[in-house]
Amino acid sequence: MTATLRAGLVGLGMMGRHHARVLDALPGVELVALADPGGDPHGVAGGRPVGRDVQHVLDIGVDCCVVSVPTAHHEPVAVALAEAGVATLVEKPLALDVAAAERVVEAFRSRGVLGAVGHVERYNPALQQARRRLEHGQLGELYQVATRRQGPFPRRIGDVGVVMDLGTHDIDITEWVTQQPLVSVSARTTHRSGRAHEDLVAVVGQLADGGITNHLVNWLSPFKERLVVLTGTEGSFVVDTLAADLTFHANGPGELPWDAIAQFRGVSEGDVVRYSFAKPEPLRTELEAFRDAVLGVGSDVVTLESALRTIRVAAACLDSARTGTTVGV
Amino acid sequence: MTATLRAGLVGLGMMGRHHARVLDALPGVELVALADPGGDPHGVAGGRPVGRDVQHVLDIGVDCCVVSVPTAHHEPVAVALAEAGVATLVEKPLALDVAAAERVVEAFRSRGVLGAVGHVERYNPALQQARRRLEHGQLGELYQVATRRQGPFPRRIGDVGVVMDLGTHDIDITEWVTQQPLVSVSARTTHRSGRAHEDLVAVVGQLADGGITNHLVNWLSPFKERLVVLTGTEGSFVVDTLAADLTFHANGPGELPWDAIAQFRGVSEGDVVRYSFAKPEPLRTELEAFRDAVLGVGSDVVTLESALRTIRVAAACLDSARTGTTVGV
Amino acid sequence: MTATLRAGLVGLGMMGRHHARVLDALPGVELVALADPGGDPHGVAGGRPVGRDVQHVLDIGVDCCVVSVPTAHHEPVAVALAEAGVATLVEKPLALDVAAAERVVEAFRSRGVLGAVGHVERYNPALQQARRRLEHGQLGELYQVATRRQGPFPRRIGDVGVVMDLGTHDIDITEWVTQQPLVSVSARTTHRSGRAHEDLVAVVGQLADGGITNHLVNWLSPFKERLVVLTGTEGSFVVDTLAADLTFHANGPGELPWDAIAQFRGVSEGDVVRYSFAKPEPLRTELEAFRDAVLGVGSDVVTLESALRTIRVAAACLDSARTGTTVGV
Amino acid sequence: MTATLRAGLVGLGMMGRHHARVLDALPGVELVALADPGGDPHGVAGGRPVGRDVQHVLDIGVDCCVVSVPTAHHEPVAVALAEAGVATLVEKPLALDVAAAERVVEAFRSRGVLGAVGHVERYNPALQQARRRLEHGQLGELYQVATRRQGPFPRRIGDVGVVMDLGTHDIDITEWVTQQPLVSVSARTTHRSGRAHEDLVAVVGQLADGGITNHLVNWLSPFKERLVVLTGTEGSFVVDTLAADLTFHANGPGELPWDAIAQFRGVSEGDVVRYSFAKPEPLRTELEAFRDAVLGVGSDVVTLESALRTIRVAAACLDSARTGTTVGV
Repeated sequence: MTATLRAGLVGLGMMGRHHARVLDALPGVELVALADPGGDPHGVAGGRPVGRDVQHVLDIGVDCCVVSVPTAHHEPVAVALAEAGVATLVEKPLALDVAAAERVVEAFRSRGVLGAVGHVERYNPALQQARRRLEHGQLGELYQVATRRQGPFPRRIGDVGVVMDLGTHDIDITEWVTQQPLVSVSARTTHRSGRAHEDLVAVVGQLADGGITNHLVNWLSPFKERLVVLTGTEGSFVVDTLAADLTFHANGPGELPWDAIAQFRGVSEGDVVRYSFAKPEPLRTELEAFRDAVLGVGSDVVTLESALRTIRVAAACLDSARTGTTVGV
Repeated sequence: MTATLRAGLVGLGMMGRHHARVLDALPGVELVALADPGGDPHGVAGGRPVGRDVQHVLDIGVDCCVVSVPTAHHEPVAVALAEAGVATLVEKPLALDVAAAERVVEAFRSRGVLGAVGHVERYNPALQQARRRLEHGQLGELYQVATRRQGPFPRRIGDVGVVMDLGTHDIDITEWVTQQPLVSVSARTTHRSGRAHEDLVAVVGQLADGGITNHLVNWLSPFKERLVVLTGTEGSFVVDTLAADLTFHANGPGELPWDAIAQFRGVSEGDVVRYSFAKPEPLRTELEAFRDAVLGVGSDVVTLESALRTIRVAAACLDSARTGTTVGV
Repeated sequence: MTATLRAGLVGLGMMGRHHARVLDALPGVELVALADPGGDPHGVAGGRPVGRDVQHVLDIGVDCCVVSVPTAHHEPVAVALAEAGVATLVEKPLALDVAAAERVVEAFRSRGVLGAVGHVERYNPALQQARRRLEHGQLGELYQVATRRQGPFPRRIGDVGVVMDLGTHDIDITEWVTQQPLVSVSARTTHRSGRAHEDLVAVVGQLADGGITNHLVNWLSPFKERLVVLTGTEGSFVVDTLAADLTFHANGPGELPWDAIAQFRGVSEGDVVRYSFAKPEPLRTELEAFRDAVLGVGSDVVTLESALRTIRVAAACLDSARTGTTVGV
Repeated sequence: MTATLRAGLVGLGMMGRHHARVLDALPGVELVALADPGGDPHGVAGGRPVGRDVQHVLDIGVDCCVVSVPTAHHEPVAVALAEAGVATLVEKPLALDVAAAERVVEAFRSRGVLGAVGHVERYNPALQQARRRLEHGQLGELYQVATRRQGPFPRRIGDVGVVMDLGTHDIDITEWVTQQPLVSVSARTTHRSGRAHEDLVAVVGQLADGGITNHLVNWLSPFKERLVVLTGTEGSFVVDTLAADLTFHANGPGELPWDAIAQFRGVSEGDVVRYSFAKPEPLRTELEAFRDAVLGVGSDVVTLESALRTIRVAAACLDSARTGTTVGV
């Protein structure tokens, strides 16, 4: 890798500071331009001047840029970069509604500029392991994908709902890990007193091949969990994306244990294996993939089209909750 | 308690053997008549003659009777006991469909005979604690009831689906613990290759007061769990009915921990308390309540009407899954 | 197995009731004689007459007998059975001191009568798995055996110390599972205010091959644990004898995870496997082994000599604690 | 705090990089001088020149200094700072043997210069909570302190044993949290093939008030644990210093649960509470305490005398292991 990519970063908040840290350590990339209307609250600039907006980055001149401004501002920033021909990675979710997401997709597509979206969970080493093993048939036929993404209310949340902010992770993961599209969803939502958007959603869905999905997503829970449980004819994968753990529970041989144990542990149990594998930081893997795509030597990014699809499914969940009906996707 | 109740037991299978064990140890009750067309596979009769059917019990003469035959046979056995004026506890679920359940209810109601249903989870000490604390407002406003009842395929299962066999536990628990009726359900089901009935169901529902419910019930999982998670404005209860544990997770005060911990454990945490309380065996508490109701000194049984209601909700889940729509209850 | 062994049982307390239950279900054995000076508190006789002492059993006439009277009474009961030529299984510990244990050994040895001791943990399926895998070298060279046997104060305890009552389990397990004798021990003990015997012991020991042992045994802890952790060059076995679980933690390949995970989980991790295997009740396996030894078709009992050795090591622990020195065995 | 302390840092390895990060963010302190013979491997200097040794720091001129060079080099660096009158915090352990530790103590004492030692576990918020609650008598009389500090072999380890490197944590914690000195220790050690120093130690000890201690410390385990379990008349504290969790297990009221649960969970259980409290990073709290001591507004540092005491106890453990005897302290 002889040339070094000149990179920009717009948005220096909670996620932006992590992008800055990782970009600063990424071989083949130099972070040369940073911008945020709020300045540099986490002190990541390290002496570099901090502009107020994307124009600062364009003025300095970059090969590629990461956009980690609040979701409501994704569209104008991303479109400006597309118009300037700058390869761009936009944080997830791509936009707050389908129309805005479509405009971003079109801005990049029509100009042939590389666009990507930061669905960072796809780079979680435990989910990558699960996807590979699923593809090799370790679970047999898949019956159910159940995800739980619950935790305390984060301070960073403004006027946005949990479906778009967090639920998009689960939608993206579910379709990507199974390689199956959701064909229908039934959702229920609720919110804290006084909040305009939903803070909790429960969803059941159906995949094209008949698999069942279930998603509990909220920021109203006192404990934090980030789990994906995949159950098939041969057993289950339990993926904990916080610890990046993948555990396989094999179906048991059906030997009956003594009564005192059967009460607690079921009539049969197979081996339970928590796999060992390398656990690089997902954000680094994501930015490596983006760098390689910019250089034309890789294609492992989450495309704008894929992220638009996720916004469509999230919108269907909100429709379902609002109308009290099951909604096709 | 001077008089001793003469009790009968029809059905000596997996549940019947436990009824026999508990009835044999219950003060104020004498188990005098046992019947099962398959005889006494678990050796619980202890020298007493074992009849083939309910007529044997009626011939011996009893004050009360427990019915733990396969669900498909509940109706004829229960109706025969109602006609004979025998106070009866029928195992759950009351029947395999609404029509049969209604006929059982009517048989007892019209004759003024005491009928009860063995929804034993209501007597689980951890759920009883949770219900009492919920009633006292410990969780504040309730946002969500999420239950998980998953485990390996049990040998005892014949041609019956998981919604009626296990899901009725979750429906009964949810409405009882919250004291709110479900007003709508959206369900998805799937089954093992070659099975006529569903083996897995995922449900989202709505309670009359707006609370959200979610239920994962199946016998296709390699690990066993029996969990009820209640989340409200003040925190969560996690009820594990296998170990009869109730754990309260309080919402946190919002103090930020150091980064390395926040990654795993969330931005805030409150106290977590697993309560200590007496843990009598639920089946014993259930049969004590039935005995007391027969004696007219208690009324803590699950009524036939309540169990019929549970069958209606279960039927709505099956309708929802079959039609792919949300179904009102 | 054409002939049926006539079996006796002396002692119908907490352990005796389990012996009765298992003997009653054991093919090839008929429990024909029961005795206890306190009668039949748990109702296990099922109509059989209950004598007051071992003479009742001898009068009825048996081929073999189980002795589960309080430890202080093991010697006279066992010796009476030896003198009558009855094959005997004595509950553990064999006796409260070395001298008594030696007399029991001699009583059986000199008459050529089969004696065995109920060190039931050896029949725990998880420990049996661990022993087999250790023998096949799965852990490589063994560095350390650490056991923890802690829990609340049991009601059954009279005036006996925790070293003889519970610690003998850990001594027996450690020497059996490693097939190495302990060569020295250093112990510290303490007791509840007002108790004559020790209620807590902490021991470090050394095995003949240089392996280190550590044992925490007490009935002063609010939580119950029964753990054996074996650590060698290739990883660790964690044996939970309550759930009969054996989990293997392999040494890791040394790949560095991202910082946030390394903080919690260490610099490397290998696969973690909880094995699936049949889990018959240990007491049943023990009594099957005793039956087979009586019939001359098996030899998998814990010998009196082995149990005497365990008493010697336990006595060395008590010496060490009393004198504040390290004691050779 | 009007004046800003000028701080130096000697040693920029694994611990040094954390000192640099925390010092850079500490109000009232400016890190002005850094030195390491190996340069700045973790890139923490941020443009500041990096000297080769302590003389560089003395040349620049500082009010205080942190020493995080390898333990074998603590003495010369610390003594040079003492001679220059620079308030100094030395990483733990203070030295590799008692004689060197005594010389460091004397260098600071004789000149009246502030010296402190980085026993960072004392600043772990969970241990601080435990100490406070212990002092208020929450556990009643203390029976036992058991610590476990096990994990995989760290790359940073050169030719030093686990007793001095890690065991000093457990010795310091035990005496500090109980406010009782250890009066005797019995230790056993072992090592990996080919290593000159011990890699595993098991210790039993006795506190002046009769409490028992037990310590398992090694870097030969495939899983990582950092636990302190304190057991007294009223229950136990379990302190996990990795997650900074403090859990209290109260003794139970003695109500008997149903058999199937008693098998797993013991004859009684009290409430179990995991407390919520602020969790600032321990290293930051340690350096705040050091800063305050330098400014004369606080005295919450670990003194050199206290750290020397810890070295003495560690040396006693090594003596015990070498001689196979119990050693008084």
